[in-house]
Amino acid sequence: MRRKSLSGAACPIARTLDVIGDWWSLLIVRDALRGMRRFGEFEKSLGVSKNILTQRLRALVSQGILERAAAADGGAYREYHLTAKGRGLFQVLVALGQWGQENVSGPAGRRMILVDRKHRQPVRKLEVRAGDGRLLAPGETMMARLD
Amino acid sequence: MRRKSLSGAACPIARTLDVIGDWWSLLIVRDALRGMRRFGEFEKSLGVSKNILTQRLRALVSQGILERAAAADGGAYREYHLTAKGRGLFQVLVALGQWGQENVSGPAGRRMILVDRKHRQPVRKLEVRAGDGRLLAPGETMMARLD
Repeated sequence: MRRKSLSGAACPIARTLDVIGDWWSLLIVRDALRGMRRFGEFEKSLGVSKNILTQRLRALVSQGILERAAAADGGAYREYHLTAKGRGLFQVLVALGQWGQENVSGPAGRRMILVDRKHRQPVRKLEVRAGDGRLLAPGETMMARLD
Repeated sequence: MRRKSLSGAACPIARTLDVIGDWWSLLIVRDALRGMRRFGEFEKSLGVSKNILTQRLRALVSQGILERAAAADGGAYREYHLTAKGRGLFQVLVALGQWGQENVSGPAGRRMILVDRKHRQPVRKLEVRAGDGRLLAPGETMMARLD
């Protein structure tokens, strides 16, 4: 099924979904943020077919979210490194994870949460704030023209 | 193509994508956060077929993200209202929008950004912070077992 393209949308949410709006892409970025770099690591983590993984990695490279690099250990394998644009998806993944923690029950006994590596304490809930620091509820915001 | 189910995943990001991991669902929630409530409003905003919109609204209701209610004006149409679970997706949408603003160029002359309704100033960039308030980069966080 061909999806409708949202690449020219005025709304930045729609444009983002056009670029990373599929599961595998976001889960690959999640794993890359956790330090994974090799095809085999992503394959094992995601349990996805080689075909789909190859397609998604290629798409992420062409979108400038990942870049290919020689292996750090000098081995024959190429690695996939996040670009600054890719690392910028951190907030998106934290937001998705916090919503899942609160709203979608996971398998008892092996649920994971995001913690601060230093103190092993849960990361704070993301807050939407105005320029002057006020906490904003959805109704206190609106979309406006940038230009 | 049948997607692999991630509903039982240990990772809360994966569970979230299992529930709202498609474009239309997130764009419907975006519009509902902006105050839209009627089928016809969503249809006009999204430019989507009645078939797909009906499916997605039904899925969002069955997931407890939207609920059906009688029209506020006493008219014959049913409305779709966000539940607390649905309003909780605000941070996800803000994160997606901010990434799009920074990384995916929109159509000149009609780009939109999220602003504080009171002062019409851009909303602050979302920040990931530790319990003690420290700003956290991706490498300063990790996934840990909750139970």
